[in-house]
Amino acid sequence: MSENFQKVTESAAEPQQANPYGPNPADYLSNVNNFQLIDSTLREGEQFANAFFTTEKKIEIAKALDAFGVDYIELTSPVASEQSRQDCEAICKLGLKAKILTHIRCHMDDARVAVETGVDGVDVVIGTSKFLRQYSHGKDMNYIAKSAVEVIEFVKSKGIEIRFSSEDSFRSDLVDLLNIYKTVDKIGVNRVGIADTVGCANPRQVYELVRTLRSVVSCDIECHFHNDTGCAIANAYTALEGGARLIDTCVLGIGERNGIVPLGGLMARMIVASPDYVKSKYKLHKLRDLENLVAESVEVNIPFNNPITGFCAFTHKAGIHAKAILANPSTYEILDPHDFGMKRYIHFANRLTGWNAIKSRVDQLNLNLTDDQCKEVTTKIKKLGDVRPLNIDDVDSIIKDFHAEIATPKIAAMKRDPQDLELEDSQLKKPKN
Amino acid sequence: MSENFQKVTESAAEPQQANPYGPNPADYLSNVNNFQLIDSTLREGEQFANAFFTTEKKIEIAKALDAFGVDYIELTSPVASEQSRQDCEAICKLGLKAKILTHIRCHMDDARVAVETGVDGVDVVIGTSKFLRQYSHGKDMNYIAKSAVEVIEFVKSKGIEIRFSSEDSFRSDLVDLLNIYKTVDKIGVNRVGIADTVGCANPRQVYELVRTLRSVVSCDIECHFHNDTGCAIANAYTALEGGARLIDTCVLGIGERNGIVPLGGLMARMIVASPDYVKSKYKLHKLRDLENLVAESVEVNIPFNNPITGFCAFTHKAGIHAKAILANPSTYEILDPHDFGMKRYIHFANRLTGWNAIKSRVDQLNLNLTDDQCKEVTTKIKKLGDVRPLNIDDVDSIIKDFHAEIATPKIAAMKRDPQDLELEDSQLKKPKN
Repeated sequence: MSENFQKVTESAAEPQQANPYGPNPADYLSNVNNFQLIDSTLREGEQFANAFFTTEKKIEIAKALDAFGVDYIELTSPVASEQSRQDCEAICKLGLKAKILTHIRCHMDDARVAVETGVDGVDVVIGTSKFLRQYSHGKDMNYIAKSAVEVIEFVKSKGIEIRFSSEDSFRSDLVDLLNIYKTVDKIGVNRVGIADTVGCANPRQVYELVRTLRSVVSCDIECHFHNDTGCAIANAYTALEGGARLIDTCVLGIGERNGIVPLGGLMARMIVASPDYVKSKYKLHKLRDLENLVAESVEVNIPFNNPITGFCAFTHKAGIHAKAILANPSTYEILDPHDFGMKRYIHFANRLTGWNAIKSRVDQLNLNLTDDQCKEVTTKIKKLGDVRPLNIDDVDSIIKDFHAEIATPKIAAMKRDPQDLELEDSQLKKPKN
Repeated sequence: MSENFQKVTESAAEPQQANPYGPNPADYLSNVNNFQLIDSTLREGEQFANAFFTTEKKIEIAKALDAFGVDYIELTSPVASEQSRQDCEAICKLGLKAKILTHIRCHMDDARVAVETGVDGVDVVIGTSKFLRQYSHGKDMNYIAKSAVEVIEFVKSKGIEIRFSSEDSFRSDLVDLLNIYKTVDKIGVNRVGIADTVGCANPRQVYELVRTLRSVVSCDIECHFHNDTGCAIANAYTALEGGARLIDTCVLGIGERNGIVPLGGLMARMIVASPDYVKSKYKLHKLRDLENLVAESVEVNIPFNNPITGFCAFTHKAGIHAKAILANPSTYEILDPHDFGMKRYIHFANRLTGWNAIKSRVDQLNLNLTDDQCKEVTTKIKKLGDVRPLNIDDVDSIIKDFHAEIATPKIAAMKRDPQDLELEDSQLKKPKN
């Protein structure tokens, strides 16, 4: 009996988790290892204040998104303007690997135009919060359900995918929401969508709503998070933990107001949790060019603090950080810059520097100094770093001078004209142009 | 019996929650309504790649942080360099309302210097993950505990505050962590700190660790989150939900690599959850100037997508958004721009515009058009918006021409020279300089 018990325990034991930052084993519905991306740069992104995409630019962006490997590309409604309709048709004809979607109001007028564009699927949306029902379309839940069923059955009859999403889901009545999702799931919608339209949701709220919805519908769940309160990436992650399958992204997160989940930032989050899946599915080396393409199109700079591609995302400065990074990059890095075609940089030319960072520089310069000598020259460098910003040339020059003094017999060093030394010193202190 | 039961139910009923986005009532240890800020722009922020703060600039930033209302200001270790020590003394002498802290290694050499600077408290930190124990300081947990006790008792004997933090807490052994926190709590440390040094943590992980630690120590819990995977603000929020009390921030989030929790972004998150507390405690109108001061000092731009102060944080563009915003700003806004001394902007000069936005512009121009006429002129505007980016002058000129035509008797309109109309049209199509 006790033998039996032991055996059962052994065979029932869960395999040890290979990645400690991976999906939580308690989240048995998690899609952290099995998510898909709907990139909306050409829909939500077009709603960004600075965005005006010509047809050529839309095609260029669509091709770049496809090369990166997003699963879906969402386009502006063909009823927004005549050019929007033509662009939608043109992108459908490109023969991309990514499926093409367009995003319309929950209305037959829009649906009839959308299905004629050649898209692989249609995303419909309608406001369900009391705010939007009162101030936007002015309809009640019965009307919403009736329109939804009509539009969904029409789009399905054309043999293409259909998603139904509420808008402002986190300020909608929970029972109303579940009711309408259950209704559309029953008639065979491909996905239901949750949208944090105003950016008010927080991660544990998201987890709860997704988990609840997961128990109500059998179709896939898609999530759309705005970033007004800085939680879009984290909300997307907890949504996947709760059982959502698809996340809406935009390159650099561009969209209404300060935008939605940024594609690059979500990649940073997901590669930590699910490295094999992310690296096998998405061409991470293409991220930087994709971001530059979109940034140029909408005339913004890559934010200095952007995950992965921000100018200092892989720069280490403090002395104790630099020391450990030199010994093993994993000590202060959860992301490997090489996964994204980027490089690590140790910033040692400053007053916070440590002697380990300087020793590494001494080695790079192919000079020969003992640890004590490295500490001594580090003190000199920190002293100058107190006076003004340093650049690498300053540091190298201090190291080389120090090495020259060490390497030269005392008697020769003493023979140097004091005037020379002073000159060098004042040169160092002079601000750069 | 049944009467009794009803009575109990009634009296036990929870009061209705006033703010639906406020703290979750199930989080009975939540500090969402009772948090404090430790701003580390002058410590963590000095580790930002581009940061070099002169003494004058440090003092200017410290005063601005104090005026904003942060509870603590953390400064670079006085042993980092001689100037760092002098700056620390100088800031302590300013007589600010905020308490001044300095941040040192868990070592008596550092502690002896720190307590002489005049600070109100000392933050000590030591790496506890296997990575840092192996590649940084090379010490075991017994050694760490011993040094911690020595340093804490020494700092306490000087009558100032002391915080003990692990470094890289989310990659440390949980039992090791709880052991050392329990030890330092027993000897009367003021705060224990959890640090996501590499930016690997996700929100529900944070909540779990904080909740667990909350049951082990009686002192306050402080949290420090890096933003490598874009979750710093969300992690800070869930930490407060779990019972942490203090959050480390930097202005614009500047720090090692892509930085930590940004002060402004956290304000956006917290004002939604706890509006009265946030508005009564922090001078939100000073946020923009504070961010500009730091951005200029470290030579970066405010990111285009920065919460609150990004150039488009309160810009609404899509037609259906603009319509509802005009009726009630809460439909598409969870943040009120006026709370931060900012303004809302409706972007109507584009092909995604709707007739409600145009009608609002018509009213602003003090013109008189019916709804049908507004729809007609909107079609004209969208058509031109398909051809090229529009600015407000373009839209106004189309509206005014349209109004002039409507207001003028048909016969007069027909008398206009066709050449004039063509000229106007080509002028509109010409790209701006």
